[in-house]
Amino acid sequence: MNQLITFEGADGCGKSTQLQLTTAWLRHQGKQVLQTKQPGGTPLGVEIRRLLLSGEFTPIPECELLMFLADRAQHVKEVIQPALQAGVWVLCDRYSDSTLAYQLAARGLDEKLDLTAMLAFAEAGCVPHQTFWFDVSIETAMLRLEKRQQSGEPSNRLDDEAMAFHQRVHQAFGYIYQANQERMIRLDASASIETIQQQIQQIIQKKIRC
Amino acid sequence: MNQLITFEGADGCGKSTQLQLTTAWLRHQGKQVLQTKQPGGTPLGVEIRRLLLSGEFTPIPECELLMFLADRAQHVKEVIQPALQAGVWVLCDRYSDSTLAYQLAARGLDEKLDLTAMLAFAEAGCVPHQTFWFDVSIETAMLRLEKRQQSGEPSNRLDDEAMAFHQRVHQAFGYIYQANQERMIRLDASASIETIQQQIQQIIQKKIRC
Repeated sequence: MNQLITFEGADGCGKSTQLQLTTAWLRHQGKQVLQTKQPGGTPLGVEIRRLLLSGEFTPIPECELLMFLADRAQHVKEVIQPALQAGVWVLCDRYSDSTLAYQLAARGLDEKLDLTAMLAFAEAGCVPHQTFWFDVSIETAMLRLEKRQQSGEPSNRLDDEAMAFHQRVHQAFGYIYQANQERMIRLDASASIETIQQQIQQIIQKKIRC
Repeated sequence: MNQLITFEGADGCGKSTQLQLTTAWLRHQGKQVLQTKQPGGTPLGVEIRRLLLSGEFTPIPECELLMFLADRAQHVKEVIQPALQAGVWVLCDRYSDSTLAYQLAARGLDEKLDLTAMLAFAEAGCVPHQTFWFDVSIETAMLRLEKRQQSGEPSNRLDDEAMAFHQRVHQAFGYIYQANQERMIRLDASASIETIQQQIQQIIQKKIRC
């Protein structure tokens, strides 16, 4: 049975590489796969992504959170749900857990707002079947990001946040993992690309057999 | 004491004309006035407005609601609150009541979601001191809109909704008025521009004296 699988973690944790390898492997297994990302998985979402991340604008935290949720709603309804209904595996780079870690907890908005109802509203009940959390130390993630920037890859507005912000993101992912162990798998993102991909394949292989 | 005054009603109800006349009159009284609108009262909001209303995109109702709220959050924090704190009168073309009438009730989302917490979150407690609701029959509003379009003024994506949508909007404004009579004044928008402006001035004059 096809599933929605989300790839979560700090920037520089290796999730996007693993998502691509997993897509290739699943396709090799004869599965139809949709590889997508948030924000920016729809034409409208591409525009929202630009407003959020390009650095042209500085949305206040409340606005930022609401725009990420708006992107989510459109993406789920227009792309993810139709794909799942058509039997396609959907692999998504960032989803609810990133919203909770980056936009809610790291911005300190979790003290103002219980996001449960808003998330359910935006996601129309579309909860991931499986989530891989690529747990990486902040130091390693920052080093990888620096390397990327040195190689000319542009950073986005959230990459450029201060160290304390990334520490709060990391801590939030830890809490989310503790509360969602039936859905989330924690992967040690300091391991080699091959080792991690093997772990992912083993876990998904079990699901394919079900 | 300066106030936040919102102008609400169907398109074609005459609220924007009245807002301009009220601004001119208040300035003539020596008051500092900020005239603003939603969506689109900030540089980021101008972009959000385009995504929502230009017709280039078709946001699903959930996405639309969240984007209107995102615009609200940025507008309140960046523009409205600083102006109020500086002693400026703020006159805003559309605010919460339009969100409740257009994005929530007319889209049927009020059955899915209690917006109270989300609105308070987006508005950071910035509730209008006074709201004028320009109550106009749907037939009159539609006629005025048609006239505008014939004169070459472009319509937006919400203007172009079907009659049933505008009927739900009108009904929703009625319910909101019933529930908020201490804040809202219902004005008969079929009266002459001069008559309505006189009513508005009388009401605000009392506030200035307080």
